Amino acid sequence: MKSIVLLSGGMDSTLTATIACRESEAVAALHLNYRHRTEGRELRAFQEVSDALGIRERLEVDIEFLREIGGSSLTDDTIEVTKANLTATNIPSSYVPFRNGNFLAIAASWAEVIGAEAIYIGAVEEDSSGYPDCRQSFFDAFERAIGIGTKPDTSIRIVTPVIHFRKSEIVRESIKLGAPIQATWSCYQSEDIACGLCDSCALRLRGFAEAGIEDPIPYTVRPVYQ
Amino acid sequence: MKSIVLLSGGMDSTLTATIACRESEAVAALHLNYRHRTEGRELRAFQEVSDALGIRERLEVDIEFLREIGGSSLTDDTIEVTKANLTATNIPSSYVPFRNGNFLAIAASWAEVIGAEAIYIGAVEEDSSGYPDCRQSFFDAFERAIGIGTKPDTSIRIVTPVIHFRKSEIVRESIKLGAPIQATWSCYQSEDIACGLCDSCALRLRGFAEAGIEDPIPYTVRPVYQ
Repeated sequence: MKSIVLLSGGMDSTLTATIACRESEAVAALHLNYRHRTEGRELRAFQEVSDALGIRERLEVDIEFLREIGGSSLTDDTIEVTKANLTATNIPSSYVPFRNGNFLAIAASWAEVIGAEAIYIGAVEEDSSGYPDCRQSFFDAFERAIGIGTKPDTSIRIVTPVIHFRKSEIVRESIKLGAPIQATWSCYQSEDIACGLCDSCALRLRGFAEAGIEDPIPYTVRPVYQ
Repeated sequence: MKSIVLLSGGMDSTLTATIACRESEAVAALHLNYRHRTEGRELRAFQEVSDALGIRERLEVDIEFLREIGGSSLTDDTIEVTKANLTATNIPSSYVPFRNGNFLAIAASWAEVIGAEAIYIGAVEEDSSGYPDCRQSFFDAFERAIGIGTKPDTSIRIVTPVIHFRKSEIVRESIKLGAPIQATWSCYQSEDIACGLCDSCALRLRGFAEAGIEDPIPYTVRPVYQ
């Protein structure tokens, strides 16, 4: 079976890619470049993670339209990136409207062309800061839409192997399976040294702390998040 | 109610936009530019149709990735455009894998940002040459995915007002509602004078013939299709 993995270059998608490589005969990696603040750094992570996992078939797709459409601090420079607040229940400003819907639509098109039967995506429901397109119910609904909207002989599953993991479990499982953690990048704010203050850094640092493991990448500050 | 209409500049989407304008307080038009053979001509049609309907809020999104992904004669210059065969039941080479899935994902993102509650799409099930993502069952499934994958206070319907029309009904209804037919473009092959030979020209010419109306746009040849 051939699979596609959506690979941003962060921890979650890197573990997902590692799992996809164990479960598939061939894996192709898809990176969606939506020209957000830290795109250059993520693209480097995508290449280094793919190298480490031996994934040769790669596609980088420019989806700058998500910047044009705006509505998110990740793509719209006029909206400030919110500082981490891990107890907030509202949807943070880094939410890109229907982002995973767009990612999966592109992956489905590519899957139909290259004959892939699974799309692996590293969404995490619990740690997803309330993004509605990170829930398993969304992936189930989208898989059904793909099934109806592609050729009759096409069968494409959406696989979410880390969806119920906490960040600490992502860390532990990554170590256990030998995922290339050192090549990953998570920070929404910086490209050289992770800021340690944005939502994404906060979730990552808390996950490492809970797992009792030190994060190998450099940070400007390393707050202790509970 | 504010609506988005997917407006390619062809007959079906132009009638759909005309209907959206009658049913909505405000309409925004979205053109997806996937850099296929006749994109320049379609973009002109998009602008002229929008002008004629008084639609001021417009977004043109570059989705060149569908060309990179390939797999279709519309986007991949190495695949020949098939000549019209209106009795064929197989999926033609002009099929772009999961195209409407991509279109609707982009529309959903924009709808959430601008507060639109409906996405009008001019898909036609019967005349769609067997494209699986033109069926009502696909739109129902995708609407459900949008409902789950967007913010809880977001409600976005997918409206397909012409889905059960034959091309002749598109022609008649366009005349009845005063849709700007003369500004539309359908040909997959040419930009100045429609070829009259591709699937899209054949469907259009047959529709006008069945409606007993002469198509106002110029053709290189005007075969009589049954």
